[in-house]
Amino acid sequence: MAIPISQQYAIGIDLGGTNTKFGLVNHRGDISYHGSILTNKHEKIEDFINDLYEAIIPAVNDCGGISAIRGIGIGAPNGNIYNGTIEYAPNLKWKGIIPLASLVSKKFGLPARLTNDANAAAVGEMTYGAAKGMKDFIMITLGTGVGSGIVANGQLIYGHDGFAGELGHNIIIPDGRLHPGTGEHGCLEAYASATGVTRTAIEFLEDKPETPSLMRSYAIEDIDSRIVFECAMKGDKLAMEVYNFTGKILGLALANFVMFSSPEAIIFFGGLSKAGDLIMKPTRDHMEKHLLPIFKNKVKLIFSELREADAAILGASALVWEMKA
Amino acid sequence: MAIPISQQYAIGIDLGGTNTKFGLVNHRGDISYHGSILTNKHEKIEDFINDLYEAIIPAVNDCGGISAIRGIGIGAPNGNIYNGTIEYAPNLKWKGIIPLASLVSKKFGLPARLTNDANAAAVGEMTYGAAKGMKDFIMITLGTGVGSGIVANGQLIYGHDGFAGELGHNIIIPDGRLHPGTGEHGCLEAYASATGVTRTAIEFLEDKPETPSLMRSYAIEDIDSRIVFECAMKGDKLAMEVYNFTGKILGLALANFVMFSSPEAIIFFGGLSKAGDLIMKPTRDHMEKHLLPIFKNKVKLIFSELREADAAILGASALVWEMKA
Repeated sequence: MAIPISQQYAIGIDLGGTNTKFGLVNHRGDISYHGSILTNKHEKIEDFINDLYEAIIPAVNDCGGISAIRGIGIGAPNGNIYNGTIEYAPNLKWKGIIPLASLVSKKFGLPARLTNDANAAAVGEMTYGAAKGMKDFIMITLGTGVGSGIVANGQLIYGHDGFAGELGHNIIIPDGRLHPGTGEHGCLEAYASATGVTRTAIEFLEDKPETPSLMRSYAIEDIDSRIVFECAMKGDKLAMEVYNFTGKILGLALANFVMFSSPEAIIFFGGLSKAGDLIMKPTRDHMEKHLLPIFKNKVKLIFSELREADAAILGASALVWEMKA
Repeated sequence: MAIPISQQYAIGIDLGGTNTKFGLVNHRGDISYHGSILTNKHEKIEDFINDLYEAIIPAVNDCGGISAIRGIGIGAPNGNIYNGTIEYAPNLKWKGIIPLASLVSKKFGLPARLTNDANAAAVGEMTYGAAKGMKDFIMITLGTGVGSGIVANGQLIYGHDGFAGELGHNIIIPDGRLHPGTGEHGCLEAYASATGVTRTAIEFLEDKPETPSLMRSYAIEDIDSRIVFECAMKGDKLAMEVYNFTGKILGLALANFVMFSSPEAIIFFGGLSKAGDLIMKPTRDHMEKHLLPIFKNKVKLIFSELREADAAILGASALVWEMKA
């Protein structure tokens, strides 16, 4: 007899450079079990999958066995949804193209689906979070880097090769700041990320040596985005200017994104977005300034409703509910 | 008895500022009848629709009557697919929001669908032209302005409000050239359009008075994109530099678009694209230069396969084959 969906679980796996976390998630987004194994302990992918299976299967048995599991969703760096592969992930031990979804599927005897972390986050937000019921939105992660997942017509945009949605690498300031990872100049990620904010703060401190700032009580090499945030919260003008500068560039980028896919909302996730109005006010102002009239005062800028610690597992698990039954 | 699709027709209507053209199109894209009426002769939209009906119905009768017509597709400025309305079109007599699709549908007793010209062009290309079989592509019209239609997962991206795909208004050069129509600075349309090319040529001629050029045999006020093209074809260095400059900006814009939706191809249409390699070579070089490695040497830059005179009618008619039967 088929198990009703209200009693089914999805396994969500968040494969990161250091840890691989997993959880069993019901269709409302409640996580029943949490666990993790080390990602890079295993030279061979098969050994990794064996370990993962041993770690997950007790939780599966507690939930009613394999027949209660609808499937497995995996979020992974450089994950390609079309063939379930991880392709040339620089931070993983397994080189080349790894057919992870099919290996996992075979081991568990369950359907498995895989995509990259940012896309998984967008599906998670649509299934359990702030984007519930939305058909057109963009999810942007402002963390160490800038990640993105784009949903249009109720579907993730993967592109012809599975790699769509690299909005952090959109060039906003031609010939602007160098991105050390790509060699490209002026991309969004070089500015609107934790590392970008740190760099802007250091540039401001060095370029305006006469301007007083609370940030000067730290050694330049110790400045990070947390210090900039704390100083700005204390009313430090130069630190607030760092956020204004960042919001100006992020707002311009968002205007371009809106004129591309006209989303109902842009949903933010990640450390930098926790600066709240410090970053969001200048971002919104500059986005609105650059929009054509037909787009003005329509797009919601909102924050993720998923707990940061759970978001990656929830996102991965959400891939399962998207599968055709 | 139901008429087989091979014997059905779609009515394609291209509503422009001056003329409204129409044709009866079969599912292979052959146009059986052509006709047109004046668009702005009628103060009242009902009178316009009555005239349109009188003009089209003889062709319908020649094709086997209303029962052989599957539906009506309309491409119109500021057309909104979601509710079939024309909204605040600046070049039309009928002000405000006009429920054109429902008025046409009622008059003909046939289903009718409406979208803007650029989106219709993309559907036309997908149904009959260069994008046949593609699920992910971007159509860019380089004419007096820059229009665009974006297809992902085999569907047009309309956005939450029906206005997605204004790529000509993406800001590529912050604080760059003024767009007189919008007041915005540095958008793609200010450069990569016939008017943009003309302006670049005039700027080059004025800024480099000592550089010899065939374009100097014309009065500045007579310079247009056709003259720039002819001079460049004769090997004029300054005219070729105009195309290099334009291609540099267009290429940068395309790199951003590719990193958004990762299309299989970008398809060009419109006057400026006829400059061929003059514009396409620098465009491709600069696009590739700015792409992340995973996107390099993958995206095809190709030209529309629809005859320019027929493209708008074909695009409009293609909306009909997209309808659920």
